[in-house]
Amino acid sequence: MAERQESDGLGEIAIADGALWGIHTERARLNFPTTGRRVPYVLIASMAVVKHACAVTNAELGHLKRDAADAIIAACAEVCEGGAMERQFPLDALQGGAGTSTNMNLNEVIANLALAHLGKAPGDYASVHPLHHVNLHQSTNDVYPTALRIAAIAGVRRLADSFAKLQGAFQEKETAFQAIPKMGRTELQPAVPMTLGQEFSAFAEAIARDRWRTFKCEERLRLVNLGGTAIGTGLTAPRAFIFRVIEVLRALTGMGLARSENVIDGTANADAFVEVSGILKASAANLSKIAADLRLLHFLGEIALPPLQAGSSIMPGKINPVMTESVMQIAMAVRANDAVIAECAAHGTLQINEYMPLLAFTLLESLEMLNSAARAFTKHVAAIEADAARCAAYLSDSPTLVTAFLPKIGYERAEVLAKEYAVAKAGKPELSLREFLVSRLGHGIVDEVLSAPNLIKLGH
Amino acid sequence: MAERQESDGLGEIAIADGALWGIHTERARLNFPTTGRRVPYVLIASMAVVKHACAVTNAELGHLKRDAADAIIAACAEVCEGGAMERQFPLDALQGGAGTSTNMNLNEVIANLALAHLGKAPGDYASVHPLHHVNLHQSTNDVYPTALRIAAIAGVRRLADSFAKLQGAFQEKETAFQAIPKMGRTELQPAVPMTLGQEFSAFAEAIARDRWRTFKCEERLRLVNLGGTAIGTGLTAPRAFIFRVIEVLRALTGMGLARSENVIDGTANADAFVEVSGILKASAANLSKIAADLRLLHFLGEIALPPLQAGSSIMPGKINPVMTESVMQIAMAVRANDAVIAECAAHGTLQINEYMPLLAFTLLESLEMLNSAARAFTKHVAAIEADAARCAAYLSDSPTLVTAFLPKIGYERAEVLAKEYAVAKAGKPELSLREFLVSRLGHGIVDEVLSAPNLIKLGH
Amino acid sequence: MAERQESDGLGEIAIADGALWGIHTERARLNFPTTGRRVPYVLIASMAVVKHACAVTNAELGHLKRDAADAIIAACAEVCEGGAMERQFPLDALQGGAGTSTNMNLNEVIANLALAHLGKAPGDYASVHPLHHVNLHQSTNDVYPTALRIAAIAGVRRLADSFAKLQGAFQEKETAFQAIPKMGRTELQPAVPMTLGQEFSAFAEAIARDRWRTFKCEERLRLVNLGGTAIGTGLTAPRAFIFRVIEVLRALTGMGLARSENVIDGTANADAFVEVSGILKASAANLSKIAADLRLLHFLGEIALPPLQAGSSIMPGKINPVMTESVMQIAMAVRANDAVIAECAAHGTLQINEYMPLLAFTLLESLEMLNSAARAFTKHVAAIEADAARCAAYLSDSPTLVTAFLPKIGYERAEVLAKEYAVAKAGKPELSLREFLVSRLGHGIVDEVLSAPNLIKLGH
Amino acid sequence: MAERQESDGLGEIAIADGALWGIHTERARLNFPTTGRRVPYVLIASMAVVKHACAVTNAELGHLKRDAADAIIAACAEVCEGGAMERQFPLDALQGGAGTSTNMNLNEVIANLALAHLGKAPGDYASVHPLHHVNLHQSTNDVYPTALRIAAIAGVRRLADSFAKLQGAFQEKETAFQAIPKMGRTELQPAVPMTLGQEFSAFAEAIARDRWRTFKCEERLRLVNLGGTAIGTGLTAPRAFIFRVIEVLRALTGMGLARSENVIDGTANADAFVEVSGILKASAANLSKIAADLRLLHFLGEIALPPLQAGSSIMPGKINPVMTESVMQIAMAVRANDAVIAECAAHGTLQINEYMPLLAFTLLESLEMLNSAARAFTKHVAAIEADAARCAAYLSDSPTLVTAFLPKIGYERAEVLAKEYAVAKAGKPELSLREFLVSRLGHGIVDEVLSAPNLIKLGH
Repeated sequence: MAERQESDGLGEIAIADGALWGIHTERARLNFPTTGRRVPYVLIASMAVVKHACAVTNAELGHLKRDAADAIIAACAEVCEGGAMERQFPLDALQGGAGTSTNMNLNEVIANLALAHLGKAPGDYASVHPLHHVNLHQSTNDVYPTALRIAAIAGVRRLADSFAKLQGAFQEKETAFQAIPKMGRTELQPAVPMTLGQEFSAFAEAIARDRWRTFKCEERLRLVNLGGTAIGTGLTAPRAFIFRVIEVLRALTGMGLARSENVIDGTANADAFVEVSGILKASAANLSKIAADLRLLHFLGEIALPPLQAGSSIMPGKINPVMTESVMQIAMAVRANDAVIAECAAHGTLQINEYMPLLAFTLLESLEMLNSAARAFTKHVAAIEADAARCAAYLSDSPTLVTAFLPKIGYERAEVLAKEYAVAKAGKPELSLREFLVSRLGHGIVDEVLSAPNLIKLGH
Repeated sequence: MAERQESDGLGEIAIADGALWGIHTERARLNFPTTGRRVPYVLIASMAVVKHACAVTNAELGHLKRDAADAIIAACAEVCEGGAMERQFPLDALQGGAGTSTNMNLNEVIANLALAHLGKAPGDYASVHPLHHVNLHQSTNDVYPTALRIAAIAGVRRLADSFAKLQGAFQEKETAFQAIPKMGRTELQPAVPMTLGQEFSAFAEAIARDRWRTFKCEERLRLVNLGGTAIGTGLTAPRAFIFRVIEVLRALTGMGLARSENVIDGTANADAFVEVSGILKASAANLSKIAADLRLLHFLGEIALPPLQAGSSIMPGKINPVMTESVMQIAMAVRANDAVIAECAAHGTLQINEYMPLLAFTLLESLEMLNSAARAFTKHVAAIEADAARCAAYLSDSPTLVTAFLPKIGYERAEVLAKEYAVAKAGKPELSLREFLVSRLGHGIVDEVLSAPNLIKLGH
Repeated sequence: MAERQESDGLGEIAIADGALWGIHTERARLNFPTTGRRVPYVLIASMAVVKHACAVTNAELGHLKRDAADAIIAACAEVCEGGAMERQFPLDALQGGAGTSTNMNLNEVIANLALAHLGKAPGDYASVHPLHHVNLHQSTNDVYPTALRIAAIAGVRRLADSFAKLQGAFQEKETAFQAIPKMGRTELQPAVPMTLGQEFSAFAEAIARDRWRTFKCEERLRLVNLGGTAIGTGLTAPRAFIFRVIEVLRALTGMGLARSENVIDGTANADAFVEVSGILKASAANLSKIAADLRLLHFLGEIALPPLQAGSSIMPGKINPVMTESVMQIAMAVRANDAVIAECAAHGTLQINEYMPLLAFTLLESLEMLNSAARAFTKHVAAIEADAARCAAYLSDSPTLVTAFLPKIGYERAEVLAKEYAVAKAGKPELSLREFLVSRLGHGIVDEVLSAPNLIKLGH
Repeated sequence: MAERQESDGLGEIAIADGALWGIHTERARLNFPTTGRRVPYVLIASMAVVKHACAVTNAELGHLKRDAADAIIAACAEVCEGGAMERQFPLDALQGGAGTSTNMNLNEVIANLALAHLGKAPGDYASVHPLHHVNLHQSTNDVYPTALRIAAIAGVRRLADSFAKLQGAFQEKETAFQAIPKMGRTELQPAVPMTLGQEFSAFAEAIARDRWRTFKCEERLRLVNLGGTAIGTGLTAPRAFIFRVIEVLRALTGMGLARSENVIDGTANADAFVEVSGILKASAANLSKIAADLRLLHFLGEIALPPLQAGSSIMPGKINPVMTESVMQIAMAVRANDAVIAECAAHGTLQINEYMPLLAFTLLESLEMLNSAARAFTKHVAAIEADAARCAAYLSDSPTLVTAFLPKIGYERAEVLAKEYAVAKAGKPELSLREFLVSRLGHGIVDEVLSAPNLIKLGH
């Protein structure tokens, strides 16, 4: 395949041998700054599904010849497979033009793949033209947001599933650690007793919410603006196409997609993505919080995180809680991404949001990163072990342990005991508070108050 | 009322004449940096409602004498009234201690108000003690988050109502402007025609989503951890109290509150607030986007924003779109607040979130600011006027107007006409594209294509 | 003073008895949403200084009568005093209009104060008119940014001074704790030994950078656009005024102010504030990091933070590290503020930045909050105490302690000892690593390696 | 090269054929979530330079045999060349462990490359061991931050140079457009006249500041902690090495590097990166502001941005301002990155910052993205053309044009004329304000006031 020339309203340009893209892609490739961020392939593949649906519909309605449609459909499938095909999509993710260049890229690659199916040379667009056939009755402004929603739905489904597994891992630990009494802590100070299982139950419950809220994101994403073309009025698209294509797309994707009631709104406004990202951020906050807690409990020795790798290039035997740090960093990145997404949505102008490329990249990255983090974290959590003796040691020696006895002995008595203990400990530093309380209150009451069953029940 | 002395474990301190607070408040007042941010009074009042419910429950169950309970309840009501009472809550919003100081402040003020009801002097805490009676069976760590949820529910209810009114204002304009054809614009370039009513319908639809998503926030806030005391185990609280107090609180507030299924989780995790804030941020993004669009349309003269005030201290007659700028600034502030809320939640440690005071201030501020913005904006939107002639002028002269004719004339013909027009205009600069198209295609087709009914219908 | 009527191009309005402001302020008061954020008084006072300078200059050059100028100057001084005068500035900080309303407010209050000096009634503007005299040769667009720079310079000077004191507090502790060996920690794992003094020296060094970088902010703020009027061209202002007023202002403020070389740039661009805020954020990051470290060391018992107040409404004797939490929250708020400031600057339009009111509020709030935090933190740090025994205990028992012996014994021997210790400890849990090393290497080498002088010296 | 086995304290693992890395890299590759973000190669190459300097120094001081050192040095050079070598660094950028895995990866690859030079098989580490030779007298905790500073200095140098070119492009336009009068605008409303050259001068001036502030970043980055090893105490490194290696590194890099005065601080604190990022953010704010202004001026037709590519897949002839949108998106991403960097620095713990991998990735990405944006933008700006007629048309018809005449005719007369014009225009809509003013004030005064020389001079 030799280098070929293509031309457009701005002139002529050479397309390198081996490139299936055309002039619009080539211009974009040369125009935009390179940021190191590539258009997410999941977005390209989702857009290929949309174009597949359009080709089917256009053929059904007689707007596209059967053989051209078949070739386009086959080309869409090839794009979805990825692999070596990914090299045909060289554009920078932060392109201007609201995604037009990515749409052009896909139109051109599909056209040239389709031409190959038809035995034609690349660039010989008479039978399959990037715009007149592949893009028929479409605009970047409806295809691109629709594809983003499809990609995002796939992402939230995967993520909800990953959160379910993570929740399961925490629930297993909740059960396993249920009977291990320990000291609860507030503001990095000992507070009142609980069990380690209870601590893990709170992790599990938070992730259960993450699972649910991620699962519910799909509802916010299912209204698409396909058929709206440039600004949501459907200009240039036949009504029959507009009504039919959504059914075809729904069948192809297996997602409960529907057309926005107000397609102009669906084209112009990106707030649904902000809401979804906000939900991802809530999950990221939970992941951060839990990872930091696990790291701290590991540092205290109440639990042992599984060793993953040597922790130091210099200190023999040092093993670091690296997984928790990776999860925390991913969570930070997701929160920063959320700010980008909201800013993109807030600063959109009139009939489309010109910052969609940045928004799309960022949202899909957040989904991918969270999913990857949740999966790696699940394996890690499953291997956590408890150190009941260490838990007991902290419990025995915490000055606020007396609070646990308030229902039995009252606030004033507790205050007195706390002061007496301070005096006793000054004389005998190794005296734990638990030992002291046993000496004053007797074994029976101390053991009862600090037993796991007593700790777990709500109130007294 | 003279200055009085109070003491605690750290020593003795003087409380100024006129202050109903006690030593814990006074220490906090002196300890913390002053940031200019005060504890939101709506939070204090909500916490007073919680304490009211606790007093009722404690009296019912025999933990509190009837007269003490009645005095506490009366004091709670006084606090809720606000007014001069607000001076009794002098603490900085960014206090450390997870809200303990605010809880102490309220306990002390309520105690002293209750003592007054009982004819006792401030500080004479034998019959009504801040901790032993007002705070009975409570901890900051359950009272504070519960109060925040109540305050936030009240806030989201108000806000949903304000969004409903704003939606109504946009819908009125949608109707009024329905038959005004204009040029739609993408990426700050003329695109294809639409009507001004359609443009406003997209604003209305976005705000309708804001109304709905704000309304739905209540679901995320209704699970409270009251009864959980220090870390969610209910330590020091009787089971009967824990189960009863939530019913009393539900009745008092008229809100569908329920106890968290996992109270330890409810005490430790703040992700629900992140989710709510994320939803507020989506609304803020819409407000920004709409305000900026309105400002731009006003600049173009397609609409006229109502004049509000002289716009310049130097340029006679200049009137600025100040309301849109105020709304945009509030929306920016809400987005920045969202980042704070998420960071607070992400960095909480173990059994409570120590950054609750910042989180609470920020969330309640966002709710208040958005509500205020939505109300002022509603009045403003209601007074917007359209300039149909200006809309028509832009429409007539936009180079992409030809796109509207694609269904009638095809892409190639359209391209040809576009080029011919460029030549014609070079010779006759005042020639509008519409005029040119009339000269080539005839009046009938041009008028039909650009008629409002044709523009409004989806597809062709 | 009875209610009076004022009128402008939009109509007539009543000004309440006691209000020194006029119609433009009153309109703004009614127009804008209330956010709970007030225009910072330090900004108003700084703007009064600018107007003072303008009055002096205008009088000097014969544009203003001597008695009117004197009355205006006296009024400016009254405004600067604050106190009861603050009530005359009721406007919301997030006003639209790039600060015009605040400028109008000040013009009107100064005019009415000046009229009082001249024995005239409020609103009788013939001799001193808000626009024609008080605002003479000015525009909001040059007065407001100039005042912000003056307020910010005062703020950074105060802050640099506060950081100097905080640095001093850390340096005192550095000296006091210099000879206390302890275990250094990386990634929340024991690493290698150091002294507590070294740990505090890193705090002191970070704050020293904060002091220096805050001090250097003044350079970025000293170029003002006063004289540029509406867009930096100086339109309506005489050249003599433009050149003279900056000298007068420099003398009045005692700050090294100069006119921007490109006044159009100085009016349109707000990047200098972004840079300053970025510097404040670096300091906020240090404060967060240090406060969190101190809280953690306190939790570990290596240091004791001074007790400030009772920490719990329920747990007797619990004392929380509340100051560190307050500092961390302030630091978070400052970082969120930084994002607002950058967004304001980024989205300014053409010849002025319409988001200046939000930018100004936020920048001045950050300065004030950091200053307040630094001062409160200084007192707190000064009272920190060390627990050398606790430091020694952690040191003795850290598994990575062997690293300290690498220079003496080599990596392989160290690895062997680490494994042998693990075996030994399994049999005798109370065996510390230090004891074990003494048993293998002898007292001499262990004591030498872990002595403070050896730890402090860089390398071996 | 067949698959080989390597082992560490955790067990044995297979290394794939063709991989030059070893067991520590392989574990990390399998452990960490995949985020799609790769360790920036510029960081790896900079770290190779640091290891080169260490090898030179260790050889000089007799700690490393000459042939091993030479082989290591040659390997470092190969790494710096990149290309196919990049595949040897497969690790995720958001790894936990503060960069240890990246350091291990480099140690292992260098060792195996060096072994190849010595004719040894990969994994045969007796003569060149990743830790004992390549990493000799180093720790991740000093090597990694040092390498980041080197990479960042190279980045800020490139960026300052790119800003210089962009400044030049704006200055050329400033000159070219100097004599084109136009209307200045504030708050998206016509304000007072200026020239297009002045407008571009403000762009040039802002970029000049960016150039300067970027250039000055180097000062903040030149203090490195190399020699400090694990926590800045230099433990395990000979003093002679610590003092010498910095000289060698300075010579190798040609950068004015010096050792931190307090190496513990240099290891623990990351605020310098926050400051640098804050400065990049100020530049990003300028780029956003300028790009948005250019896009708006292009929309208004006062300037023409060069056409880059077809703007629509559906609208013939539509050309979008895509470059400005790309620049704005990059600027948004840089601002979001800044928030990440600050959060990383703020939440570091004790003796090192565990979030360095995220911080490093983000900072280097910002530098790279800004540089790429500045370069692409420079070409774009250079091709901007002005439309003087369009500028004049807006000027003639702006209602605030009268302000320009205030110095000649006074405020009251101007107000009267403004009102009279409103009346006149109502009767004759095509009457421009300039025509009206000519009819009242005469040609002479109008032409003089609105001449470019008069507009450019500051004041009157």
